[in-house]
Amino acid sequence: MTSDLRVDGARLWERIEALGEIGAVHGPNGERGCNRLALSGADAAGRDLVTSWMADLGLDVTIDAIGNVVATRAGTVPGLAPVMTGSHIDTVRTGGRFDGILGVLAGLEVLETLIQHGVETSRPIAVGFFTDEEGARFAPDMLGSLVYVGGMAVEEALDVRAVDDGARLGDELARIGYAGPTPCPSAVVPHAFVELHIEQGPVLEREDVTIGAVTGVQGISWTQLTIVGQSAHAGTTPMGLRHDAGYAAAAITVGVRAIARRIAAPQVATVGRLELSPDLVNVVPGRAVLTVDLRHSDDAVLRQAEAELEEDCRRVAEHEGVVIDRQSLARFAPVSFDDSMIELVESTAAGLGLSCRRMPSGAGHDAQMLSRVCPTSMIFVPSVGGLSHNIAELTEPEHVQAGADVLLHVILEKARETR
Amino acid sequence: MTSDLRVDGARLWERIEALGEIGAVHGPNGERGCNRLALSGADAAGRDLVTSWMADLGLDVTIDAIGNVVATRAGTVPGLAPVMTGSHIDTVRTGGRFDGILGVLAGLEVLETLIQHGVETSRPIAVGFFTDEEGARFAPDMLGSLVYVGGMAVEEALDVRAVDDGARLGDELARIGYAGPTPCPSAVVPHAFVELHIEQGPVLEREDVTIGAVTGVQGISWTQLTIVGQSAHAGTTPMGLRHDAGYAAAAITVGVRAIARRIAAPQVATVGRLELSPDLVNVVPGRAVLTVDLRHSDDAVLRQAEAELEEDCRRVAEHEGVVIDRQSLARFAPVSFDDSMIELVESTAAGLGLSCRRMPSGAGHDAQMLSRVCPTSMIFVPSVGGLSHNIAELTEPEHVQAGADVLLHVILEKARETR
Repeated sequence: MTSDLRVDGARLWERIEALGEIGAVHGPNGERGCNRLALSGADAAGRDLVTSWMADLGLDVTIDAIGNVVATRAGTVPGLAPVMTGSHIDTVRTGGRFDGILGVLAGLEVLETLIQHGVETSRPIAVGFFTDEEGARFAPDMLGSLVYVGGMAVEEALDVRAVDDGARLGDELARIGYAGPTPCPSAVVPHAFVELHIEQGPVLEREDVTIGAVTGVQGISWTQLTIVGQSAHAGTTPMGLRHDAGYAAAAITVGVRAIARRIAAPQVATVGRLELSPDLVNVVPGRAVLTVDLRHSDDAVLRQAEAELEEDCRRVAEHEGVVIDRQSLARFAPVSFDDSMIELVESTAAGLGLSCRRMPSGAGHDAQMLSRVCPTSMIFVPSVGGLSHNIAELTEPEHVQAGADVLLHVILEKARETR
Repeated sequence: MTSDLRVDGARLWERIEALGEIGAVHGPNGERGCNRLALSGADAAGRDLVTSWMADLGLDVTIDAIGNVVATRAGTVPGLAPVMTGSHIDTVRTGGRFDGILGVLAGLEVLETLIQHGVETSRPIAVGFFTDEEGARFAPDMLGSLVYVGGMAVEEALDVRAVDDGARLGDELARIGYAGPTPCPSAVVPHAFVELHIEQGPVLEREDVTIGAVTGVQGISWTQLTIVGQSAHAGTTPMGLRHDAGYAAAAITVGVRAIARRIAAPQVATVGRLELSPDLVNVVPGRAVLTVDLRHSDDAVLRQAEAELEEDCRRVAEHEGVVIDRQSLARFAPVSFDDSMIELVESTAAGLGLSCRRMPSGAGHDAQMLSRVCPTSMIFVPSVGGLSHNIAELTEPEHVQAGADVLLHVILEKARETR
């Protein structure tokens, strides 16, 4: 009986540790994070390590034109589409050892467990890692999976320039040896896709729940605001004659919080970046650049939040006598995952005796791209302190085991289906 | 008769133009400003140029331990203290060509005029430029003149660190060759000090008055606030669980404006600097550093403004769950200039047929430091559009001529006094 089957959590943890050594970043209090920006030397080394593990298991490994790597174990019934899992192994500049990585290495562990125990499945099972999920070096984020499902032409993606050094994505891909021969978008449409990922938020930990059955991904709207006022002497310029770009930025930041309050959860709204010029103690700022990150699971409500931000900008600009330019940096509509897949995650968790709750994802994931072409869901496990995109990011070994076991049985269930 | 004597405004303007080429910053609409942050390479080049002009006039040039440069022309009566003038030649990062510079070069022009016309004076006349008046790179502002009058120990001043690159002031001074041998504080107490400066505000222009007889300087309070919250994922962290240092900074910035509104003019209040960490679009800021500049001519009211800021910080820290550390960067009580010196500026302007009004200074100036040790006043001339600390800063040539002529005759009057 395969229902007693469990992954080898210790083996999975060892792989997480080993991959975490590549591009390791050490914090002052013993934190161990990673810096493996997409298509950097560290990303290349991480790719080489994971690909070697795939090959060691005797899997069929393909590399496609955008650098996505997919390893497949054959099924017993010819002609069936594979059940697919996977995630990404690139990180932000001060990222953790789990974000993305867990999903890839747990998928690998699922395959090794099946191989070790001689468990055959009707359908093939594929585990992949997608290029540049973070978008920290090449915009947009989730680029590799977006191209994989045909959402962006591969030629366009290869021409994207790095935000740090201006390098062309296609050139970087060739440089690190991951411009593969397999066509992209993929000719293979999976039977189903399931991705294990850390929550990256505090909800599961706070509620002492082990498994999140992810219902979908919030819509994301990123806007950059450039405010032009007039720099002036902080001592000699009467308050009534000021056109203070810094004050305008602050008023908008306070307004962004008020938008989130008015709309209420699951609306979130964040001003993450803000730069003043000339940025001197005794000069009224003449220029400010800030970003606003708005997210909601209902696209109509997200549009309402965007409209409120626009109205705030108009009002502040008029009141302070400044000019505010709005530029969209990214816009993804909300995604709803497949009901039967969400239910399968729930029932699998229950069958394993694990606590589970439904929840939306506040962050974007490769799964939302795959959901365009096949039934998809995600499995979340708790993040200690809710921390992510942070070198202190941590998921406890017991939760890694639990999440990978749910992944194993969801995959097994789907891989048994012959139609 | 020296009453017909006038400075050579064209020669003075040429020197302003020449010094303005060093560290020049060009704007999109033909603006020409300067970036000569204290003890930078550009400041060094500016110092070299002005010092060479001093030497060319045969003046006795001294450089003291904090880098103040003073050029003196001897008087005819031995043993008398000099009449002193001067200002500064460092600028803010996007500064103008007049702030400080006018006072130094007009002083030099006064001396050249006297030399050219063979006018001797009983007392020596000294013109100086003081180190780091702006405080844009090393806090506090007016550092050089503060040390000059013994208000800060030279050893302490030499240990100040740059806000940009952390360089030690003493090391930078040595690097650019301006760690001079003359002891500081100065052994010479001037008989009187008068400083010509641009108004840096809109009052003279708006009232069509040529000369401001400056009655004193507003009190200045600079505070740096360091806010520590917790960086977190912008998509996955519910609003109610955030400790957003950026939001807290914005709330305080909005509160600073409200303080200025409640107290009303002449209260001014400015947040000029603000830095977020990690400063990424999709990360809730974990840390913010901002500065608050408060000014008022009544010290009791200034203390009230400071108390209101403290209360705002306490309230925001409690509400957002962040820790706010307050550090005083500079604190100068309001200064009243010497009545007889103010009257002398007024009567000199009247004698030259120039319109004149009394006014306080909203900005700090080296003169306020000198007023601690000798009778002091200042002469203001109009700033076009009230602009300063801005590359569009401009004072019309006719106003440069008028201000320098008033300076000439105030100095002559005081330099005739033998007791």
